[in-house]
Amino acid sequence: MTTASQKPDAHIYRMELGPRSYDIHIQPGCLDDVGAAVRRLFPEASRCLVVSNEVVAPLYLDRVRESLKGAGWEAHACILPDGERYKTVDTWSRILDALMEARLTRREPVLALGGGVVGDMAGFAAACYRRGVPYVQIPTTLLAQVDSSVGGKTAVNHPHGKNMIGAFWQPKLVWIDPEVLRTLPQRELRAGLAEAVKYGLIRDAGFFRFAEEQADALLNLDADAMSRLIYESCRHKAEIVMADETEQGMRALLNLGHTFGHAIEAMTHYQAWLHGEAVALGTRMAARLSERLGHAPEGTETRIVALYRRLGLPVDIPAFPADAWLDAMGHDKKNISDAIRFVLMRSIGDAFIADDVPEEDVRELIASY
Amino acid sequence: MTTASQKPDAHIYRMELGPRSYDIHIQPGCLDDVGAAVRRLFPEASRCLVVSNEVVAPLYLDRVRESLKGAGWEAHACILPDGERYKTVDTWSRILDALMEARLTRREPVLALGGGVVGDMAGFAAACYRRGVPYVQIPTTLLAQVDSSVGGKTAVNHPHGKNMIGAFWQPKLVWIDPEVLRTLPQRELRAGLAEAVKYGLIRDAGFFRFAEEQADALLNLDADAMSRLIYESCRHKAEIVMADETEQGMRALLNLGHTFGHAIEAMTHYQAWLHGEAVALGTRMAARLSERLGHAPEGTETRIVALYRRLGLPVDIPAFPADAWLDAMGHDKKNISDAIRFVLMRSIGDAFIADDVPEEDVRELIASY
Repeated sequence: MTTASQKPDAHIYRMELGPRSYDIHIQPGCLDDVGAAVRRLFPEASRCLVVSNEVVAPLYLDRVRESLKGAGWEAHACILPDGERYKTVDTWSRILDALMEARLTRREPVLALGGGVVGDMAGFAAACYRRGVPYVQIPTTLLAQVDSSVGGKTAVNHPHGKNMIGAFWQPKLVWIDPEVLRTLPQRELRAGLAEAVKYGLIRDAGFFRFAEEQADALLNLDADAMSRLIYESCRHKAEIVMADETEQGMRALLNLGHTFGHAIEAMTHYQAWLHGEAVALGTRMAARLSERLGHAPEGTETRIVALYRRLGLPVDIPAFPADAWLDAMGHDKKNISDAIRFVLMRSIGDAFIADDVPEEDVRELIASY
Repeated sequence: MTTASQKPDAHIYRMELGPRSYDIHIQPGCLDDVGAAVRRLFPEASRCLVVSNEVVAPLYLDRVRESLKGAGWEAHACILPDGERYKTVDTWSRILDALMEARLTRREPVLALGGGVVGDMAGFAAACYRRGVPYVQIPTTLLAQVDSSVGGKTAVNHPHGKNMIGAFWQPKLVWIDPEVLRTLPQRELRAGLAEAVKYGLIRDAGFFRFAEEQADALLNLDADAMSRLIYESCRHKAEIVMADETEQGMRALLNLGHTFGHAIEAMTHYQAWLHGEAVALGTRMAARLSERLGHAPEGTETRIVALYRRLGLPVDIPAFPADAWLDAMGHDKKNISDAIRFVLMRSIGDAFIADDVPEEDVRELIASY
């Protein structure tokens, strides 16, 4: 590529999962090189299907198509409506219709161009079409770049539960261009930063400090700070996934803030908060629960809330009756039997799984806000 | 079990697939022991969901529920309409609704009680619910007992193609009671025999001979002959699956008769023939194609047709224009790029993959009937 030399260097992290291994490629401006990259993976294929949505497609679909065309691809497209409320079996079914119409074979790839919803649905469609075809993630939101595009968790929502219908299906490549974040609404940028901060809370106190120190640079999309944030986030996510691909144990640490966060999303019918915002609220609650149970030192919650405030994230816990909270958490899909599972912290940078939190402590925590 | 000693011995074949290994248990009368068997696999679970259909449930659901109850299970049920035309995303979605309603956790099993359609849909629902929960196959048709319940291929149909939406998802146990075949319509019994005979054609001339010699005993449901037929079929299926779990190569041999067979099913809108019947017709065509291309000796097709006639299977190839055949085969999901793939025979007991059959030869074959 003649343009490659003008771009900043790529950061590449290799997800090692045996026959399911793949590269996570991070490089400002790399969106225009995606056609050649996908061609290297599938030298013999001719067709592909780009799945995107009504917001992202007008911004980036032409560039992606141009790049694909330049690499000899016959690129079909499937444009979905935008928003979590369309993350349904029906929308997923439309992607399958598009795959049938384009007559993609078992060895031709699906490309997911968009945020987490597009990636989850396109990935789940790829998992099921002809019992599994390859796919490539081209995440365009920060949340997708630091989390959902990596690791192979795909899904759609059921009317009674988020991500209840899905598959573990790894992509063949994750292609991340941080420059696309320029068109991302501020609120979504901040929700993505919350998700990145989570890795610091779970397993890397130094990375949490980096986020504290670089908060302004990150909000201003400084190229170096943002590339490092994405790379380190992908590295953490990948290390956790490599240790526990199908979420039998350690991977569950990534659900820090999710037990409360999913409950908040469910109780507000996924209308009030972005996923990353709800998880930030849930993480705040998990921090206080950790302190109250004597696991984490005093001040843990305060320090987290301070960073969230600097990043412009919501920190006020919504008021619902304790029974509503518990009911919403009872539906959480990570539960074993009827116990509620929490991810708690011993300190910033050291999370663990707690299966044995008494309901009474949860009720008292809820009442404390 | 007090009743166990009164039953004929079990034939057990172990499918070895590393962490996805499981037993295929064949034993007349074992339907009443399924609760205890599933309990041994999941000692800590409390709930399960039995998926069946309107034809099978009145015959066997009470016995299965009784057995489950006796082993301490809280058994929920989901009864589907009967028939291939209901093998759709919509019906699959109903199973997911039932799973949500029963609040099954990630470690509680789905039980598929029925033929191939029930097994395929229940298995695909288990593959997708919470990104994958365990399931057990309790096949009640011969076709399902000798083929579809073993090997982990799950799917539903798309309006434009059979089994186009699915997953590779292995069961945790296959529990086969040959006595349930007593309630199976003759026509379905025969279609199942055709599928068993296929293993002989692909890789075991002795097994083909066994079917020729025992044709009457099999049609009369002789316990010894039928148990041997099912066991040997499961062994063949399992050996092929173990060598090639996700159908990258050798497993494609199982598609003997399927390229033409699927075309026949598609052209007749899945109304005229049972799947096993269509595959028998397709196998006849594959035999003649093998002879015409000089791969198989003369008389191969004749010997196959003779056995099919004894088993009461259809042998007359339906008349459609060659373009309709080729169009219908072009949709076949096993194709790579635009080439049509066939499974052909060198002799009875020795099948192979042919990717390079000229379209002209296919047209001449079609014209020859």
